[in-house]
Amino acid sequence: MSSTATTLKGQPLDRPVLDALLRRRMFFTPSFEIYGGVGGLFDYGPPGCALQANIIDVWRKHFILEEDMLEVDCTVLTPHDVLKTSGHVDKFADWMCKDPKNGDILRADHFVEDVLEARLKGDKEARGQKVEEVDDPTKKKKRKQKTEAIKLEDAVVQEYEEVLAKIDNYNGEELGELIKKFDLRNPLTGVQPSPPVSFNLMFQTAIGPSSNLPGYLRPETAQGQFLNFAKLLEFNQQQMPFASASIGKSYRNEISPRAGLLRVREFLMAEIEHFVDPEGGKKHPKFSEVENVELALLARDVQLAGKTDIKHATIGEAVRTGMVDNETLGYFIARIALFLKKIGVDMSKATSQEQREALAKELSEKGSLELEVAGVADGKVEISKDLVTIEFRKKVENTREYTPNVIEPSFGIGRILYSLIEHSYWTRGSDGGDEARSVLSFPPTVAPTKVLIVPLSANKAFKPFIQKISQKLRKVGVSSRIDDSSATIGKRYSRNDELGTPLGITIDFQSVQDSTYTLRDRDSTKQVRADEDAIVAAVLSIVEGSKEWKDIEAELPAFEGQEVDVAVR
Amino acid sequence: MSSTATTLKGQPLDRPVLDALLRRRMFFTPSFEIYGGVGGLFDYGPPGCALQANIIDVWRKHFILEEDMLEVDCTVLTPHDVLKTSGHVDKFADWMCKDPKNGDILRADHFVEDVLEARLKGDKEARGQKVEEVDDPTKKKKRKQKTEAIKLEDAVVQEYEEVLAKIDNYNGEELGELIKKFDLRNPLTGVQPSPPVSFNLMFQTAIGPSSNLPGYLRPETAQGQFLNFAKLLEFNQQQMPFASASIGKSYRNEISPRAGLLRVREFLMAEIEHFVDPEGGKKHPKFSEVENVELALLARDVQLAGKTDIKHATIGEAVRTGMVDNETLGYFIARIALFLKKIGVDMSKATSQEQREALAKELSEKGSLELEVAGVADGKVEISKDLVTIEFRKKVENTREYTPNVIEPSFGIGRILYSLIEHSYWTRGSDGGDEARSVLSFPPTVAPTKVLIVPLSANKAFKPFIQKISQKLRKVGVSSRIDDSSATIGKRYSRNDELGTPLGITIDFQSVQDSTYTLRDRDSTKQVRADEDAIVAAVLSIVEGSKEWKDIEAELPAFEGQEVDVAVR
Repeated sequence: MSSTATTLKGQPLDRPVLDALLRRRMFFTPSFEIYGGVGGLFDYGPPGCALQANIIDVWRKHFILEEDMLEVDCTVLTPHDVLKTSGHVDKFADWMCKDPKNGDILRADHFVEDVLEARLKGDKEARGQKVEEVDDPTKKKKRKQKTEAIKLEDAVVQEYEEVLAKIDNYNGEELGELIKKFDLRNPLTGVQPSPPVSFNLMFQTAIGPSSNLPGYLRPETAQGQFLNFAKLLEFNQQQMPFASASIGKSYRNEISPRAGLLRVREFLMAEIEHFVDPEGGKKHPKFSEVENVELALLARDVQLAGKTDIKHATIGEAVRTGMVDNETLGYFIARIALFLKKIGVDMSKATSQEQREALAKELSEKGSLELEVAGVADGKVEISKDLVTIEFRKKVENTREYTPNVIEPSFGIGRILYSLIEHSYWTRGSDGGDEARSVLSFPPTVAPTKVLIVPLSANKAFKPFIQKISQKLRKVGVSSRIDDSSATIGKRYSRNDELGTPLGITIDFQSVQDSTYTLRDRDSTKQVRADEDAIVAAVLSIVEGSKEWKDIEAELPAFEGQEVDVAVR
Repeated sequence: MSSTATTLKGQPLDRPVLDALLRRRMFFTPSFEIYGGVGGLFDYGPPGCALQANIIDVWRKHFILEEDMLEVDCTVLTPHDVLKTSGHVDKFADWMCKDPKNGDILRADHFVEDVLEARLKGDKEARGQKVEEVDDPTKKKKRKQKTEAIKLEDAVVQEYEEVLAKIDNYNGEELGELIKKFDLRNPLTGVQPSPPVSFNLMFQTAIGPSSNLPGYLRPETAQGQFLNFAKLLEFNQQQMPFASASIGKSYRNEISPRAGLLRVREFLMAEIEHFVDPEGGKKHPKFSEVENVELALLARDVQLAGKTDIKHATIGEAVRTGMVDNETLGYFIARIALFLKKIGVDMSKATSQEQREALAKELSEKGSLELEVAGVADGKVEISKDLVTIEFRKKVENTREYTPNVIEPSFGIGRILYSLIEHSYWTRGSDGGDEARSVLSFPPTVAPTKVLIVPLSANKAFKPFIQKISQKLRKVGVSSRIDDSSATIGKRYSRNDELGTPLGITIDFQSVQDSTYTLRDRDSTKQVRADEDAIVAAVLSIVEGSKEWKDIEAELPAFEGQEVDVAVR
């Protein structure tokens, strides 16, 4: 259970250092900070925006274009009746309780979890066992809460651990019973909170001037897609199966938003609804293209038991053995894995212990990699109840009338973005007495900026060369940024490594004479030198993915300039 | 005042026919229609989504990349205090009145306008003058309202016309006086509505589980950008001037949303905040690049007088003569014109009579092409009051402390999209007894799909050729769609012309023998025939904008196949 996250290079991950970098370089920042901030709301700065736009771009190409999906853009504002029918008005809720002494509002399952975990930690300390801090990014920053080193009965330890394993399966009444049974108290006040009550997570508003139309901000994009089903089927010339897709904001009024991007109140959602005829075993014509994709899978019974034992298998095996119900479902699971790999998520990380914890948590709640299947109970935790009740989703084909099933690969882009950042992070060795320098090794496809252009100094002679190379790069569709600040070249490249820019072009006095430039690789800090055309061609081939840095090193002469201490001005 | 809109080819625009096309082809559709719909909310279907994504893509390249702007993505949810400080809580409102008889809620200025216009129309009829319907897409579909042919005094006619010219300048009290003075009555009930009261246009909600943090959905994206000013300045290494930019949804609870996309309650906004030191005359280093751009301008005094006399001038002249206050403001006006031209908006349309009406209306309200300047009163209708009150926006430079001014080019993407559709629409002649066929001549840059691939029939022999050409197109980054439905080739191309796809590739039996295909131009319906590589190269050059159809016709042999009546199956 206790284990530490690691960086891209296997170093222990110092999350506060990473978080400080992400704020300093404005990947994202708490919204309304000068007004004191609002929990669960974040703004993306320039590098975060560009990273997000690039991830969306890959998502659109990978899913919408390659699979000929029908994209829709539906409104966030949704009238009450729609979400009443879908079941969200009655059931889209978490359990919350209130501390009668200080008025604290607590999310019941998180509260039970936190107190029991603190007791288990105290027990370990009392037993003299080593207590490692679990580095769980989904957790809110712990309130200063002293763990008392109190030894527990062995049977109690076992009971607590069983409760924690099944924490997501309790309803409000059961959570209330646990609070009473174990006498769980708010560490801030020392009192038991009130019994849990249901709290609907939808933001409410009223539409129209007379305010007589109650409405909500959508908690997911699915309803807009379902309500357009008949029109989309018509657009698709009555052909089934087909998929609709949507990317847009969704809103959930979380009781206790967690630090960072992993549980927020406003988030960008990329959601697909693949409508399929349930007859015919849900075969997929392109399944053979993905059947050898290897996956780390959490089987249904393992998830329901609150366990995290991962099974490695190809998706072909998983479908054959029934762990995944059918080809179409398997096809999308594999396509999702390929998408995540393409943007640079480290697929091996999903099998490390600490990621398993988070993964199990996510899969058993509504959230990031949610995959819903209606009408199919096998191979899936959750059944989307709203899908089988809406009348219009019937289709007459010859004389057979059926309710299409739907497979719903749904992504929270913010969560993927944060994982990608964490998986791309490492620190450069502190040789020579320097401090360790942070690097974000984003793949060129998603890197916010592809090339940094760095003149040696503010000397006017460099200006035309800066203009020329930046125009050439723009012409071939490569985004670049110029850093002509007065910092040393080394400092400028360090800043740039923190922004994750894969390539750098230096313009120096030799450039003025012979129009050659150096090209620097972020990850190795190695440089080559060549004329403008060769440099632009090298950049383009790396950005397009047709070559890697080692190919460029083999083709162009190395440049041995000292990076850090070139004097400027 | 009365005049009719025209199509791209100068034909009279039949708006109901265009609107039916847009619904049939699912460019956009009323949201929640199966629940009765909600005024001012629309969903975009696949072609609308693609068109929107392409417009955003051009916007991002044209502004953010080419001008090195700092993009941010801020939350829609905004706490009360922020919008209180900005003035929106107190002032972001329209005047509404209520019909005491049937409870109808009316937007006061629209009500006055509608009743006076109906009276003027009745007067014209009584005088035997020809009454043309003004085709104003900003108007809600008129309720069935009989115009009574009643002749008015000449002085009354003049008074009504003066009121209408200044309709946007009245406050609630003044609108109430007009209602009394002219005895304006709701045609549905025959009674005078109640005096106008202020109605705030922001959607309200509550953030957090205890619902103790009142908030709103942002009515514009500006506040998020202003609140991040200090962080952005830091990100920009303390260099001024700089611009931030944002694209995202904004929300306005319109009292009477108008039909179509021109006045909606949820809309996509692309907004730029260019922060500039007010000293130094707001010179712009790249002004010379745009000074010869020709514009149709509505001078400040003309706007304030409610008139629409357009002056044609280059932006250089406009700045020299003081009609536009300074180079930086002029630079952005010209860049906006270039952007609109690039995506296919017909700039000459802005000078036609009916567009002038709409334009004058838009410029004098909060909306589409809004350009706000703080601290500069000349050359601009509106001063953004919120900009000068927020404390943090001070900057110390050496020892001079100043409040940056801001220029705010702000777009409602939906309005641009609708204009673009209207400007691209025309109908193909009805020769041979056929009905007139609709065409949307989008430029290739923004067209939802670039190429339609059409096999002659469902014959299996065509399958591998379809696959091959579609893969080749995808490889060079060109989006295509396959239409292998059983409709005739002619029908399929007609459908496609309605979707605005510029090119079509036909695969026929000759293709199977010699791998040649025909390439069809949407606008001329002319075709050429060549082998795969030449066809793909031709497509790419048109999509990239390096060639036009006439170049392709000059290079490749014409193909004289009959388009409409090829028998299939």
